[in-house]
Amino acid sequence: MTDEKEFSLIDKIDSPADLRKLRVDQLPEVCAELRRFVVDQLSVNPGHLASSLGAMEIAVACHYVFNTPEDRLVWDVGHQAYGHKILTGRRDRFPENRKLGGLCPFPTPLESEYDTFTCGHASNSISAALGMAMAAKLQHKHRHVVAIIGDGAMSGGLAYEGLNNVSSKPNDLLIILNDNDMSIDRAVGGMEQYLLNLDTNETYNRLRFKAGRWLHSRGMLSDERRKGIIRLNNALKSAISHQQNIFEGMNIRYFGPFDGNDVVDLVRILRQLMDMRGPKLLHLHTVKGKGYKPAEQSATIWHAPGKFDPKTGERITDDNGEQPPKYQTVFGETLLELAKQNPKIVGVTPAMPTGSSMCIMMKAMPDRTFDVGIAEGHAVTFSAGMAKDGLMPFCNIYSSFAQRAYDNIIHDAAILNLPVVLCLDRAGLVGEDGATHHGAFDMAALRPIPNLTIASPMDEHELRRLMYTAQLPGKGTFVIRYPRGRGVLVDWRCPLEEIKVGTGRCLSRLALKADGGKILSRREQLTADADGAQGADNQPKTTAVITIGPIGNDVEEVMKEMAADDAVTVGHDAVVQHYDLRFLKPLDEKILRYVGETASAVVTVEDGIKEGGMGSAVLEWLDDHGYKPDVIRLGLPDKFVEQGSVAQLRQLCGIDNENIKQTILNTLDR
Amino acid sequence: MTDEKEFSLIDKIDSPADLRKLRVDQLPEVCAELRRFVVDQLSVNPGHLASSLGAMEIAVACHYVFNTPEDRLVWDVGHQAYGHKILTGRRDRFPENRKLGGLCPFPTPLESEYDTFTCGHASNSISAALGMAMAAKLQHKHRHVVAIIGDGAMSGGLAYEGLNNVSSKPNDLLIILNDNDMSIDRAVGGMEQYLLNLDTNETYNRLRFKAGRWLHSRGMLSDERRKGIIRLNNALKSAISHQQNIFEGMNIRYFGPFDGNDVVDLVRILRQLMDMRGPKLLHLHTVKGKGYKPAEQSATIWHAPGKFDPKTGERITDDNGEQPPKYQTVFGETLLELAKQNPKIVGVTPAMPTGSSMCIMMKAMPDRTFDVGIAEGHAVTFSAGMAKDGLMPFCNIYSSFAQRAYDNIIHDAAILNLPVVLCLDRAGLVGEDGATHHGAFDMAALRPIPNLTIASPMDEHELRRLMYTAQLPGKGTFVIRYPRGRGVLVDWRCPLEEIKVGTGRCLSRLALKADGGKILSRREQLTADADGAQGADNQPKTTAVITIGPIGNDVEEVMKEMAADDAVTVGHDAVVQHYDLRFLKPLDEKILRYVGETASAVVTVEDGIKEGGMGSAVLEWLDDHGYKPDVIRLGLPDKFVEQGSVAQLRQLCGIDNENIKQTILNTLDR
Repeated sequence: MTDEKEFSLIDKIDSPADLRKLRVDQLPEVCAELRRFVVDQLSVNPGHLASSLGAMEIAVACHYVFNTPEDRLVWDVGHQAYGHKILTGRRDRFPENRKLGGLCPFPTPLESEYDTFTCGHASNSISAALGMAMAAKLQHKHRHVVAIIGDGAMSGGLAYEGLNNVSSKPNDLLIILNDNDMSIDRAVGGMEQYLLNLDTNETYNRLRFKAGRWLHSRGMLSDERRKGIIRLNNALKSAISHQQNIFEGMNIRYFGPFDGNDVVDLVRILRQLMDMRGPKLLHLHTVKGKGYKPAEQSATIWHAPGKFDPKTGERITDDNGEQPPKYQTVFGETLLELAKQNPKIVGVTPAMPTGSSMCIMMKAMPDRTFDVGIAEGHAVTFSAGMAKDGLMPFCNIYSSFAQRAYDNIIHDAAILNLPVVLCLDRAGLVGEDGATHHGAFDMAALRPIPNLTIASPMDEHELRRLMYTAQLPGKGTFVIRYPRGRGVLVDWRCPLEEIKVGTGRCLSRLALKADGGKILSRREQLTADADGAQGADNQPKTTAVITIGPIGNDVEEVMKEMAADDAVTVGHDAVVQHYDLRFLKPLDEKILRYVGETASAVVTVEDGIKEGGMGSAVLEWLDDHGYKPDVIRLGLPDKFVEQGSVAQLRQLCGIDNENIKQTILNTLDR
Repeated sequence: MTDEKEFSLIDKIDSPADLRKLRVDQLPEVCAELRRFVVDQLSVNPGHLASSLGAMEIAVACHYVFNTPEDRLVWDVGHQAYGHKILTGRRDRFPENRKLGGLCPFPTPLESEYDTFTCGHASNSISAALGMAMAAKLQHKHRHVVAIIGDGAMSGGLAYEGLNNVSSKPNDLLIILNDNDMSIDRAVGGMEQYLLNLDTNETYNRLRFKAGRWLHSRGMLSDERRKGIIRLNNALKSAISHQQNIFEGMNIRYFGPFDGNDVVDLVRILRQLMDMRGPKLLHLHTVKGKGYKPAEQSATIWHAPGKFDPKTGERITDDNGEQPPKYQTVFGETLLELAKQNPKIVGVTPAMPTGSSMCIMMKAMPDRTFDVGIAEGHAVTFSAGMAKDGLMPFCNIYSSFAQRAYDNIIHDAAILNLPVVLCLDRAGLVGEDGATHHGAFDMAALRPIPNLTIASPMDEHELRRLMYTAQLPGKGTFVIRYPRGRGVLVDWRCPLEEIKVGTGRCLSRLALKADGGKILSRREQLTADADGAQGADNQPKTTAVITIGPIGNDVEEVMKEMAADDAVTVGHDAVVQHYDLRFLKPLDEKILRYVGETASAVVTVEDGIKEGGMGSAVLEWLDDHGYKPDVIRLGLPDKFVEQGSVAQLRQLCGIDNENIKQTILNTLDR
């Protein structure tokens, strides 16, 4: 980092057209300014740092060479694209990046015509860009289409399905493979090894560079000649070295590897390639975190580092040891604890060992943990295979990414009810990562699947108990969904105990008297015989509040508030009872029957989509059993929820404490 | 085909142990007997013929060489596995193949210990078998694990994700690639081309065969030596020819291609490979339909040919021209009709041009149709890319296979509400293909996704109208689900007219008088002003029957039956009204409001899973709007439904006419 805070070049770039007015030799300084800008911005407004730094030259060179937005750049994954955003008219709005109403976290056509497709889930660029290239061809539009795939996305099966189809019909797609040997954690798998082999194929490289030098020494390097050289190189590869490059084997012309952080050279190469007919792949090497020393040295930490001091590289953490831990930490520590006791347990993560904290077990038991790369479908089916032959895999996938494994969950795990423990991290609202990343659909999508057990813990103790329960014999396919971020219990280490599958609990009971009296009984004060589900007086007017997962803690806050709020009065005696359902499937029929018998109103609160979700399950059960209370379902609305803080988004979705409270009060006779 | 009907060898094979008692030179006759047996059986009891014929030697050789069931064979896809079934104790039950209570259509561990994993959806074998190989390694079990992948499954991204992880940790997996250049239709894509290139790499093949001959001529072919040769071949490939074989690049040792229909040679090769350490891939060429001339000549038709005369190869069809057409035919013809009018329309199918009838458009407009291979995720994302740039793709996927594309539907199509027309063929119960193939989950899984329009036609006219509607401008992502098999209208060609999105219709109204009188008014007799949804008398006791899709035709039958049945009497005047909802999303609020206002009972009938399905949507809407009729939801139960005829399965699930009728009658005051 320099002290120089001027952005003399990028201050004048309001669109790629402005960039294209610059001389090629000014582009390195553009990249340097962009880097400084991004580091400065992200030091106070956290985001995805290292990937965007590494891809800065790609963004600059592409917008310099191609006629965007008429030409199409398809980014995969969006982590790489901050340079692209700043160059395409969003520099001034960048301080609002990832904020409610501000810039979206990843490129999206809903925000800018320069963003050509939805980014967020990896590996979709080749398929989408191929579609655009075919559309151009069929509509006789002479436009360039470029997929920029990187950051480990090549391990996803979708990328392969795309590649497999690239040469099926005539098109001029250019695929740029941004190869930094890292996804979020270090990239894994055979393809990574394969790419490494391509790099080190010395025979071919020697020939190629010799040919280039020979031509260069004879002053033959006009643009036309350069294209000739590339074709020659290509032919050399195929004809002389007999290298059966997978891309060329698929009839995709392969060029590279080149240094993707050399912007001048990159412009030259792209100009040579851009009008070449047919599908082609340009293999670039970049350094994740490039240009910011701390990030270059530790790209995993600096993938999304939070706030930091841009000068020193010191990361600013609000950890003071007194806060509750993240659910991720509890997952990681508990998994290791269980794995020490149960030799059948293995861990599987699709490229998220750090984000999920599976790295804790991975470090202690490398033989029993598997980072399979960005490959959610494989993660589940591979886990199912291990489960079929006696192991007990904990397969941890972010909820929204698990959508990629929907069929694998049904077809490969649930049909045989195999003992796969599917831990869905980042369930519910995730905040700043926005529409593509909210874990909104898991409950509604998984509930219809036979055989599954689906649970969600309200706090760290419950997470530990559910993890313990899931690995006991005979439990079958067991889903545990929990959110991103901190729990509620500083003292989170509790004994590991079984929770009976399909049992919820009554957490609190607020008796409201017409004379103004109020009694709030918490879980520990309720009669023990039936978790408060029986033995309560049969009240004339009862409202049942049913939650699942950590939002139950917020409802407990609401219960306290109502107990303390003098403005809360009732015309007749009334009772509000709060249940933590704990299991979406199977439902706790004892609780639901009691609710059906006693409640005139039911308020369900969940942080998943309402259509078909937990509230819907409760409503179905009550209707099936002839109970007809008013059921008011709170949850995510039938639209894609944008980015923002979790608190802001909860308010937007009507699952904030104030709206929950108001909804409960509306059910009472006041 | 011979006239000889004896099965002297296979009659004595009750398990692979019996097979292993035979001499190697008897195995060709075993294969011949198996072929005759399968052809005879399938000529009267239809099933998947051509794939199983082609893979007969693989089945025999694997069970001969490997110690099954302790050693694990993982078949992918199940089409190949009839030989395997007959050899593993299921010969006598084979006449009950694919029947209710009989043999499952595809291998499943629920049926036999020789079946190691769920088959049905392609491309899962490598991931599952790798899991088993890892499980063996971690538990120190010395067992062989063999994945047998073929029939086009290599185009699926899941297979690639598996391959990409095969070499990540020590294991001894053997992958047999059964390469017959065909999936169900002819295989497509770059990987197919790549495999072809491998075959024709003459330099390498010359070297390999020379080395083999040289050693053979010197009598050096002991088993040990043979293993040596294979290793030598391998080394040759890597070191001499510099061939960057994708498999070897991924650290999977590659052997082949060999003739997979030469059972004696296959036994020899497998014995050489079986105890070799590390992951390896054996590439075999087989002929789909092998040994039955008609099937060899036209493998697509003979993939699942229906009944036929085994001697002449004449297929026995019950088509007499007077029957209603298959929905598939209507889809295919209508798509071409629309594509002729609308130049934006393109067609996309993942390997099912024949099954879906997209072949009709493909033949007429090859440039505008895309068979992307078994790659459902890509099919959707590729369609979305084309839609983003101005085209209107009809992407046709079998409902249960579309589970593979769940995230693509959400992330790549629905977020931007791109005009992809997703046609879900084989929705609902499919009959004999069983648990893996029923389109049970589509409605419940797709309903929670924002922006989607989801419709289901009750008959061929409705299918045509919905297809027409979906391709009109501004409709966004549009799902049309329809079943396998025949419709109900012989005269199916109707004018193409728009259906207003979100509108259902009242089909019939049965007025039941306490004095025994009955009046059944059909759609055409109902007041036109509001499709019978308004203008009806406000009856004291009304039951609304709500259906979606072709099951509405059955309910119409039930309405007629009730009108004609003298045993149907009521104590008070009553009305039964039948609505075809037509759109699952958005719901027809006018109809639902009228139902809420008038009905004391609502019976919903759907051929999808009940949890979260259409009935659940109706229940949610009624509850949200304060209506509390009894809602009785009929649909598929919360378990995986096995194979059988559709009629049998409907009865099993309680959506047969008798149960529908009884359910309706139970709501009436009788």
